[in-house]
Amino acid sequence: MRTQYFTATSLDGFIATEEDSLDWLFPLGDINDTSYSTFIAGVGALTMGASTYEWILRHGEQVEGETGSRWPYTQPTWVFTNRTLDVPTGADVRFVRGDVRPVHAEMVKAAGDRNVWIVGGGDLAGQFHDAGLLDDLLISVGSVTLGRGKPLLPRRIVSPSLRLTKVRQVGEGFAELTYEVRREGGAT
Amino acid sequence: MRTQYFTATSLDGFIATEEDSLDWLFPLGDINDTSYSTFIAGVGALTMGASTYEWILRHGEQVEGETGSRWPYTQPTWVFTNRTLDVPTGADVRFVRGDVRPVHAEMVKAAGDRNVWIVGGGDLAGQFHDAGLLDDLLISVGSVTLGRGKPLLPRRIVSPSLRLTKVRQVGEGFAELTYEVRREGGAT
Repeated sequence: MRTQYFTATSLDGFIATEEDSLDWLFPLGDINDTSYSTFIAGVGALTMGASTYEWILRHGEQVEGETGSRWPYTQPTWVFTNRTLDVPTGADVRFVRGDVRPVHAEMVKAAGDRNVWIVGGGDLAGQFHDAGLLDDLLISVGSVTLGRGKPLLPRRIVSPSLRLTKVRQVGEGFAELTYEVRREGGAT
Repeated sequence: MRTQYFTATSLDGFIATEEDSLDWLFPLGDINDTSYSTFIAGVGALTMGASTYEWILRHGEQVEGETGSRWPYTQPTWVFTNRTLDVPTGADVRFVRGDVRPVHAEMVKAAGDRNVWIVGGGDLAGQFHDAGLLDDLLISVGSVTLGRGKPLLPRRIVSPSLRLTKVRQVGEGFAELTYEVRREGGAT
């Protein structure tokens, strides 16, 4: 069981524009050429912030075009939010707030042998890192710069640095970079 | 002859901290394992902004430790600045200001068959891109996040997107990503 932040980013480190647009992302390649299908097959539980969740709700048609379904996940999903939000038909969604640690414990239990996916945004991934719960970063660097937008991971992770374990080119549009989080004074 | 922005960046798109520190960069790997020596052999002229130039002046000892010399370049170098700055012994440095286009024309003449290197910072590289003069981005993505700092390339380059031509892993510390700038309605 690994806790993984899998996301796409621009070359300059933004996962979305300031208006939460992903319009720059979809023209960059076919999701079927990426590692996504292998990755999602290993996921047992998901978590995301309210902005990411609301993006999916607002873009049902586009999500359906890319994935075949308006709510593309069969796994249970924990959404961090302080508000009451809609739930798509058939989706297993639980609304939570506050400390990520008890929520992570629940997700681990639900995931069994499979992995926990932090879908985003960047600050939620950062909160899992702060709590020492983030194992891997699987980052698809898209061949664009946005100049400004929502940050990939608004944290300083320098010492110890991340461990780059794999690079893979996906056409002209993506470089997939895989990192492990090193733990101070111990193995990952 | 290609005009190339060759730089290292954090995974989240910063080429230096807000205080222009590169202390996070040097522990990530040995420069001799990277593409730098092949790259610099093809460079005929360099340009940089005042902050980059002053960083080199201030860090003479560290630069000498990494490269063997306090001023590691034999090529002529154009420095964009509005101030009068020191010139290291033996360095061929010309101070310029304003529009990048006439400076680029001078550099191309000096470079002959070799390439023009935009050392940094990000906004200077952006000015060359704005003028349609940037051909390639050679980006070494270091295995750290900084959270904030000096931006890699504060521009929106989405349509057309960049063309990723090569990815290469350098140990656990760097992913080298090579891009070509696409020109609207034409070949690069």
